[in-house]
Amino acid sequence: MSDVAIGLDVGGTKALALAVARDGRVLGEAQAATPHDATRQAGEATAVVLTELVHGLAASHGLRVSDTPVGVGLPGLMRRDGRLAFAPNLQSASGADLGSLVGTALQSSRVFCENDANCAAVAEHEWGAGRAIDDFVMVTLGTGIGGGIIAEGKLLQGRSGFAGEIGHMVVEAHGIPCPCGGMGCWERYASGSGLKRLILEAAKEGQLPTLLDEHRSAEGIRPEDVTRAAAEGLDEAIDLLRQISWWLALGLSNLVAILDAGHFVIGGGLSSASDLVLPFTREYLANLVEGYQSRPAITVTGSMFGPRSGAMGAALIAFERNS
Amino acid sequence: MSDVAIGLDVGGTKALALAVARDGRVLGEAQAATPHDATRQAGEATAVVLTELVHGLAASHGLRVSDTPVGVGLPGLMRRDGRLAFAPNLQSASGADLGSLVGTALQSSRVFCENDANCAAVAEHEWGAGRAIDDFVMVTLGTGIGGGIIAEGKLLQGRSGFAGEIGHMVVEAHGIPCPCGGMGCWERYASGSGLKRLILEAAKEGQLPTLLDEHRSAEGIRPEDVTRAAAEGLDEAIDLLRQISWWLALGLSNLVAILDAGHFVIGGGLSSASDLVLPFTREYLANLVEGYQSRPAITVTGSMFGPRSGAMGAALIAFERNS
Repeated sequence: MSDVAIGLDVGGTKALALAVARDGRVLGEAQAATPHDATRQAGEATAVVLTELVHGLAASHGLRVSDTPVGVGLPGLMRRDGRLAFAPNLQSASGADLGSLVGTALQSSRVFCENDANCAAVAEHEWGAGRAIDDFVMVTLGTGIGGGIIAEGKLLQGRSGFAGEIGHMVVEAHGIPCPCGGMGCWERYASGSGLKRLILEAAKEGQLPTLLDEHRSAEGIRPEDVTRAAAEGLDEAIDLLRQISWWLALGLSNLVAILDAGHFVIGGGLSSASDLVLPFTREYLANLVEGYQSRPAITVTGSMFGPRSGAMGAALIAFERNS
Repeated sequence: MSDVAIGLDVGGTKALALAVARDGRVLGEAQAATPHDATRQAGEATAVVLTELVHGLAASHGLRVSDTPVGVGLPGLMRRDGRLAFAPNLQSASGADLGSLVGTALQSSRVFCENDANCAAVAEHEWGAGRAIDDFVMVTLGTGIGGGIIAEGKLLQGRSGFAGEIGHMVVEAHGIPCPCGGMGCWERYASGSGLKRLILEAAKEGQLPTLLDEHRSAEGIRPEDVTRAAAEGLDEAIDLLRQISWWLALGLSNLVAILDAGHFVIGGGLSSASDLVLPFTREYLANLVEGYQSRPAITVTGSMFGPRSGAMGAALIAFERNS
């Protein structure tokens, strides 16, 4: 039984590694750029980077690699055996058996893979904003939307371990095309990409005079510019966040209908705008949820661990599955 | 321990009662019209009818009412304590504590309430089309769409017992108004009501010359006329069922994304058109499900017990909760 696990969270641009104690304390951190090396076999380049991160953290904390449980959070359909079956936002590793690649490179049988948002969900459930809450959904707002469902106290995995792909729930039939191949997926509307699209549309319709003046072109206005301007009280920016919040609330209300979730933990990049987005979202939920008045209060909070929740949860899963 | 339970399924127009053995055999059946008596307190008239049905079945099968577990399936948000919190399609009983009303009238402490589609799900899981399948969703297509989710081998209930309200998942933002108060709910598109709307729209656009000729007005064309004409090979009717099937597949693909369900059991009135609707639905699913090729096959079948699955499941739940 190891007292420390290493959790890895592999995103589209960077990979984060944390050494985590059993009580959730983060003992050390390292990161590296996620490779997108098309000349290598899918996943091999990623496995090399992950292996180096683990060796580095292990060395600096005096851990023996073969004894240390390692959890890996990856974006996409993660099979229970460690194969990344489908990853629209990490094409370079799609189809790769990262569990085996990393395990072989580390000469360890203690490598466990899981979907990144599922990792975030278990971390928030064990130590964070979903602590002691049996029915909640972790929603990670980034380029896309990831999800991890805690139902009746445990992670809902589904048949193949693919449950929680909430970003690909269609909320607008015949809507905007999505990299997954579908149309009208929720993540096209309520994520960072959704905000980018809203910026372009609003600019075209002349609704962003101040932001356009500052940034010269609609393409030059980034989501973080909007959240900053909104925090400073700029109405045209607040309007954009209201729209994003409505779309966010729409998807959450679908999850309430299907899962009867009572709580949502919102993480990911866009959640830095949570001071405005979360209150707006709560307001819209009251109108969108079926039978809202007949249900106990539905709560929406920001994640406790922010960008670390995925890697922390990967470590937690490594502890659990290693035992 | 009773060897027989009585299961009740209360629909918008009629209530069905079944005496069911532990192995699922149906020993007897009775039915009555569902009252919509606005002069009584909500639910009381319903409780009277249900009580009479139970007494009738008990008498004809030599059962002592106070010893016989009774399950009641109701449409809407059913709280664990037996109160029907919200029922857009059974307004007369909405808010009523039917569990207490029926229990008091029967002088029995063995009355257990559950959502009707949840009942159907457990019946199909135990004895029917979902037997031995750990991750599936029961979808009942009637005026609306009901749902019961079996996740990892058991009924998913959610925080308050309200999980599975899949008909009120929004699939068309800003879409058609729904009696629940929302807009664009799935059940507005893929249910019997959805088919009725499609008939009116298609007739208006001149796409139903043969059906209009037979039935004189668009309002005169019932869903069952369309399914019959389609079965006889009428192209304009087949086109309508294709459209309904597309909407059905759209909602199912959302449930695959969220729950990673591998199987769907389709019940309810519209499922009588299953010889055409189910093959069309399977065909559309292949295009609509995220990462379809990366998943094991997703199966869609008709329910085994048809209109009896709700009452059978109510009896099963009564057996289980009485033990």
